[in-house]
Amino acid sequence: MEKIVIDIYGADNGAEPVLSGVAKALKCGVDFFPVLVGEESVIDSVMQENGIAKDAYNVINTDKYITNNDPPTAVFGGNDDASMVKAYSYLKENNDCTAMLSPGNTGALLIGSICRLGLVAGLKFPALASALPTLDNKLVCLVDCGANTDCTANDLVRFAKMGNAFSSSYCGIKEPKISLLSVGREKGKGNTLVKEAYELLEQSELNFIGNVEGSDLLIGYADVIVSDGFSGNIILKNAEAIGKAAMQIIERLGASENPELTKRMTNALFKAFDFNSQGGATFLGPKKTVVKMHGSANEDTVVACIEQIIRLNKGNFAEKIANCLN
Amino acid sequence: MEKIVIDIYGADNGAEPVLSGVAKALKCGVDFFPVLVGEESVIDSVMQENGIAKDAYNVINTDKYITNNDPPTAVFGGNDDASMVKAYSYLKENNDCTAMLSPGNTGALLIGSICRLGLVAGLKFPALASALPTLDNKLVCLVDCGANTDCTANDLVRFAKMGNAFSSSYCGIKEPKISLLSVGREKGKGNTLVKEAYELLEQSELNFIGNVEGSDLLIGYADVIVSDGFSGNIILKNAEAIGKAAMQIIERLGASENPELTKRMTNALFKAFDFNSQGGATFLGPKKTVVKMHGSANEDTVVACIEQIIRLNKGNFAEKIANCLN
Repeated sequence: MEKIVIDIYGADNGAEPVLSGVAKALKCGVDFFPVLVGEESVIDSVMQENGIAKDAYNVINTDKYITNNDPPTAVFGGNDDASMVKAYSYLKENNDCTAMLSPGNTGALLIGSICRLGLVAGLKFPALASALPTLDNKLVCLVDCGANTDCTANDLVRFAKMGNAFSSSYCGIKEPKISLLSVGREKGKGNTLVKEAYELLEQSELNFIGNVEGSDLLIGYADVIVSDGFSGNIILKNAEAIGKAAMQIIERLGASENPELTKRMTNALFKAFDFNSQGGATFLGPKKTVVKMHGSANEDTVVACIEQIIRLNKGNFAEKIANCLN
Repeated sequence: MEKIVIDIYGADNGAEPVLSGVAKALKCGVDFFPVLVGEESVIDSVMQENGIAKDAYNVINTDKYITNNDPPTAVFGGNDDASMVKAYSYLKENNDCTAMLSPGNTGALLIGSICRLGLVAGLKFPALASALPTLDNKLVCLVDCGANTDCTANDLVRFAKMGNAFSSSYCGIKEPKISLLSVGREKGKGNTLVKEAYELLEQSELNFIGNVEGSDLLIGYADVIVSDGFSGNIILKNAEAIGKAAMQIIERLGASENPELTKRMTNALFKAFDFNSQGGATFLGPKKTVVKMHGSANEDTVVACIEQIIRLNKGNFAEKIANCLN
């Protein structure tokens, strides 16, 4: 059974929902062995409350952690006792531990993946990939979602190659359709960065299908949408916010008149546009699988993130990432 | 009464909806005098069908026009008979004509505003502004929506100043709250371009309130959101597409079960997220008011665009734009 190391600190509502989520995953029969990094007494207490036996998990005891207000550089020296750092160290040193999950400070997790774990050859900084549900019930991988705000065309090519590895391992697609986020589908549309990357991607061995535009995010036209982290972050947050706003409009109009139908509608909108509830952001570049779950994570998000890690591992994600930039 | 010159060609469904829209505006008592550029017999026929007397409008007769497949440079030499070019010439040469409306080729309209009409001093290329309805029933101006895909920090400052002029004249706001689109609200978040523009805007006389992020587009936090045209185009198209997708989900779930409630819901979503139906993109930079209406424009869009022009003129938009870059 594969070990997943889980940093329990950094979520908006504290460690409890994270631990309850781990317990729920175990009770649902998800096939993994958690190594929980946090205060042992708290961990044991929540796991016991949830009916999880002491031998179903390991603990790395610490009550120190990096907060969301700390600078990303907090993962450097002086914080060796912080849960995130201990989790990275455990992941690095243990061959039977394949992945790490954390709701912590994204910047610190990114820097930590470089200085505490290590990136695959050919990469200076990891990228963030999100798997978004499309309207035709597939998944589209958006990369980069915000780790790299200033990019070169070669960065975008690397994102494309890593997105290709993600899509093939996570979604089981043989030749993922790779696209570039731009202002129009036609070749020649876009800023200088996109135009340069377009030329490079045309020459690559990837199944490059050209540009997509802002309206194409969730239609399933492409399997991978490549973007600099600035635009990727903006479109991701926008899509979630518009989805949420639509839910509020529907709720306001229908909740008292037809609560049952309205509930089904808002549930459908939630499923379509609340990406955080359906898993976490996958780091592209670290030598082992790292998934960042959203700070607002609840029990179900944690279960979804653990299932995401197992699915990635089954698809040989780490191996594919290690080889895709050669 | 002010004259508005209207290029009737370039819309997806031909000239007829554009002309019907003009007729509708006249019948609704909107206070303007249309100068219609297009084939006289067609114009007269549609206006007559709609009960508009021949003395309620002027015609500049031509059956030539620039299509959406033509390159933007089609407005240069050799196309002096094209409706768009004739409209620009009329606008330039007639003091009592204050504005132009066209559903035509956006690129050609942009280039045409430079070479056929002229920009205010201090500007090399116009920007596109959209007034979007916020969830708290205000309007937010997004600039640039796609005219300038590669920008410098000084470009963003010019967009901010012109957005300020737009917001104060169109929305009547005394000191519009100006913001920069970025990946987080905190100072220091963003790409190099945004960080540089942030410093410049802090030193400006504008009411600069800092960054907004992708989730802030429609919440009414800022009156003006400044962006390079690449990210601005992407977020605008994304917001519309997500809104449309939400409408389809609601329609599918509720249309047969509770058609009346479902109709009210989809109408509300349309009102919130179908920006094209509520007016056009305003050009920031030309010496006179130019509004581009969407190719999919229907009658009501045309009426909304004409009302938009009148509202801009009442707010001394052209004068404010002429002076804002000094």
